[in-house]
Amino acid sequence: MKDRKELTGEQIVVKVGDLKIGGNNPPVIIAGPCAVESRQQVMETALALKEISIDILRGGVFKPRTSPYSFQGLGLEGLKYLKEAGEKIKVPVITELMDEKNLEAVVEYSDIIQIGSRNMYNYSLLKEIGRIDKPVLLKRGMSASIKEWIMAAEYIAAYGNKNIILCERGIRTFEVYTRNTLDLAAVPIMKGETGLPVIVDPSHGTGRRELILPMSKAALACGANGLMIEVHIDPQKALSDGQQSITPEQYKKIFLEVKKSYFKL
Amino acid sequence: MKDRKELTGEQIVVKVGDLKIGGNNPPVIIAGPCAVESRQQVMETALALKEISIDILRGGVFKPRTSPYSFQGLGLEGLKYLKEAGEKIKVPVITELMDEKNLEAVVEYSDIIQIGSRNMYNYSLLKEIGRIDKPVLLKRGMSASIKEWIMAAEYIAAYGNKNIILCERGIRTFEVYTRNTLDLAAVPIMKGETGLPVIVDPSHGTGRRELILPMSKAALACGANGLMIEVHIDPQKALSDGQQSITPEQYKKIFLEVKKSYFKL
Amino acid sequence: MKDRKELTGEQIVVKVGDLKIGGNNPPVIIAGPCAVESRQQVMETALALKEISIDILRGGVFKPRTSPYSFQGLGLEGLKYLKEAGEKIKVPVITELMDEKNLEAVVEYSDIIQIGSRNMYNYSLLKEIGRIDKPVLLKRGMSASIKEWIMAAEYIAAYGNKNIILCERGIRTFEVYTRNTLDLAAVPIMKGETGLPVIVDPSHGTGRRELILPMSKAALACGANGLMIEVHIDPQKALSDGQQSITPEQYKKIFLEVKKSYFKL
Amino acid sequence: MKDRKELTGEQIVVKVGDLKIGGNNPPVIIAGPCAVESRQQVMETALALKEISIDILRGGVFKPRTSPYSFQGLGLEGLKYLKEAGEKIKVPVITELMDEKNLEAVVEYSDIIQIGSRNMYNYSLLKEIGRIDKPVLLKRGMSASIKEWIMAAEYIAAYGNKNIILCERGIRTFEVYTRNTLDLAAVPIMKGETGLPVIVDPSHGTGRRELILPMSKAALACGANGLMIEVHIDPQKALSDGQQSITPEQYKKIFLEVKKSYFKL
Repeated sequence: MKDRKELTGEQIVVKVGDLKIGGNNPPVIIAGPCAVESRQQVMETALALKEISIDILRGGVFKPRTSPYSFQGLGLEGLKYLKEAGEKIKVPVITELMDEKNLEAVVEYSDIIQIGSRNMYNYSLLKEIGRIDKPVLLKRGMSASIKEWIMAAEYIAAYGNKNIILCERGIRTFEVYTRNTLDLAAVPIMKGETGLPVIVDPSHGTGRRELILPMSKAALACGANGLMIEVHIDPQKALSDGQQSITPEQYKKIFLEVKKSYFKL
Repeated sequence: MKDRKELTGEQIVVKVGDLKIGGNNPPVIIAGPCAVESRQQVMETALALKEISIDILRGGVFKPRTSPYSFQGLGLEGLKYLKEAGEKIKVPVITELMDEKNLEAVVEYSDIIQIGSRNMYNYSLLKEIGRIDKPVLLKRGMSASIKEWIMAAEYIAAYGNKNIILCERGIRTFEVYTRNTLDLAAVPIMKGETGLPVIVDPSHGTGRRELILPMSKAALACGANGLMIEVHIDPQKALSDGQQSITPEQYKKIFLEVKKSYFKL
Repeated sequence: MKDRKELTGEQIVVKVGDLKIGGNNPPVIIAGPCAVESRQQVMETALALKEISIDILRGGVFKPRTSPYSFQGLGLEGLKYLKEAGEKIKVPVITELMDEKNLEAVVEYSDIIQIGSRNMYNYSLLKEIGRIDKPVLLKRGMSASIKEWIMAAEYIAAYGNKNIILCERGIRTFEVYTRNTLDLAAVPIMKGETGLPVIVDPSHGTGRRELILPMSKAALACGANGLMIEVHIDPQKALSDGQQSITPEQYKKIFLEVKKSYFKL
Repeated sequence: MKDRKELTGEQIVVKVGDLKIGGNNPPVIIAGPCAVESRQQVMETALALKEISIDILRGGVFKPRTSPYSFQGLGLEGLKYLKEAGEKIKVPVITELMDEKNLEAVVEYSDIIQIGSRNMYNYSLLKEIGRIDKPVLLKRGMSASIKEWIMAAEYIAAYGNKNIILCERGIRTFEVYTRNTLDLAAVPIMKGETGLPVIVDPSHGTGRRELILPMSKAALACGANGLMIEVHIDPQKALSDGQQSITPEQYKKIFLEVKKSYFKL
């Protein structure tokens, strides 16, 4: 990969407000619902998570769904709810951006911009993200090679923005027991190759809630700089990804066990 | 796939000017360079192809390259050259659209809008394409399942545009001998499931020029409504995809042999 | 693949009795049930196929099943029924060999020895097969690379047996619509690389009976030297692979259409 | 997987001499060269490992190589060297069995019988292994699904042998940066589904020695009952798998760091 000019392995620490991600900083946890479904739902979830512990609140308002007839997210309205919930519990928020036309709104309301798996190859969008200086979380494409993922990050960096957090979320393989195959070797590889912080999403990475705890431990053990976990106050009623979402109660158990082993107390 | 409302298997014939694609119409050949590199290059190629036989002229002007430092295409300038070459040899032209901001220009200059593999999941773009009535060629994502590909087409149709041509271009597998694994079973499957015309791209589908002829024959034998082939006047000097490009001379041989077996003479 | 000494691309025609497979010889059809289930079943199937047209009769007697509790085949008894049926309709027979201990029996009763996908990497068995001079049909492993498949054939050739027929039967990918992804590019590749005849199994290659006809046509169009098709007199009651089996009636339609297009009449 | 009768999730602890594997027993480390190359090489390696710490000594004497012209192992002679080295340092030994004809010899000289990836579907061999009571280490096939792997273990159990240790060694995917994609989610899944101990092979699982340490930590963090690591006194000169082998020195560093975090001291 002789093509790289910006991301060559030198360690980069990304700052989100007072929070530092990467390097020797303790791992962060991003938690929240797959989708913002209502003001009440995101606020309740946020308050429940605040009580346990959370570093960044997540919530999708623009949803890239396989079917055009599935719930597509609340849009701008949801974005405001998410921001309000984040301010209430005093943590930064992250949401996914799917296109340039919503860039301004997302930049205004969200502290981190997420580029989802389906847009990792959307080079036009990556260039736009490169032109601003907001932190961006770049998920690996569902069948993106290590090389392609590195170069997608390089696109953002080449256009001027190095505030990049990478997120391994599982790759597509023949295996059907899990939704995706979580490729944890990507954690040390991507940290070494790019110098960027790498977090892991065990919710999408496995698609099964009983695997979130063991995979969270494994992720941190091999050097992940954080975790991204889907939490819903009522997973049975979730408008998307209910099967892999956990309740705040379940999140608490995971957090405590993970904390015990790996976090500075 | 109970979610489908628009594309339910009823046969759809797509018209591009006087050309009809799909149904019982004879297969069409889309040929031309991977990228428009100069006015002279696209014009020379077009004239050479005209002499042999060609239905639609292709040429990329916005190029989704893995590296931000690779040639990104000539943009609007290239689009004008492509249009000019198409008019010169009196065939419609097709080019790839990567983002909404160039939609208007591509609609103006191109007869068919191509959505490339990397944007098959770009639902924001698919919705925009759905709102216009230009014919669109939707390539399969590089690891898109049959179901996801159907639903991507349904996105376009759901927003009002059924002038959709599907294009199988190979999927990503463990095999490294070929660039992709051409999934020809997708041809009868997608025709049956959606009713849309399906064409095959053996150039990207194999990545090796010696496989273009046998795979073209196989594609037509299982019902493909057309082929998309990369032709370059000097593959050694091509700015992209030289390895899988063929010369007009080589195209002639392929065309004649394919014609002999499958086309109405 | 500098390692090759025996299979270097020079064309090899395999003889099975009077039948010649490979080179410019017309394609052959191997048909019959997935498993020999009873004397009556294999005889009835054979007679029905004879009436239509068949070159080689297939039938498994040792079955490599995923579960130890599934029907494992009739063994030696089934082998005798298969042989008897083949003699009755005057065509050679083929059955799968799973281990060395049954080699002698299979050599005695079967005209071609099949090495199934699950044993392509069983190098001990390949060496034994190399030491005899019976024709062998070597299926591609379910995720074997082109290189590994070539080298598996080279194992057999290196130990002295070049009477090898290759069989593409689909590879394992992320796609779940089909049972496997039929990799037809492997046909011209393997013919060119090894010089051996290559046949295609559209039954296992797709797992869906409606795809057998289009994929048979495609296989022959890109140069396959034959087809291997699962036929059962009553697919609903088949002890294995019922979903991809066709009746003799359905086989007749496929045979006639394929014959019309590709066979010397 | 209603088909299971023997392995239904109840915890099984496998005993190898005094060593207990699985359940709440501390993780074990299996180390040694990919192949036994000479009496001196295996003895030197064993002595170096003994000094550091090792639970089981590995060494291949029957090697399933992609090319028939590559080193195929020392066979029975190598088996005796391995046994001698194991006795010298007082640890049990493990070696791979490729066929029934060497079963008796392997049972006599080896304390654990390894079934390699290429033979996971070799049901004839699995049945034979099921008839004896030696501990067996069953590697996952290179593209075996979770279900197929479970059923391969069930084959052994169904024929009477429940002394089974499972070994995740990476699966085949599109990714080429690593030799295989280590599927660590398989660890908690297989432990839960079968009750058997699961160990992880980060050497084959990644193919890169710099990834052995982080992946070893991750494996143990998600519950692996042990590790299998390739160690060679001179990786540059190894007759196979040199790229992923480490020296005893490098092994020492890994052992100490892994021990510090996870082992009972």
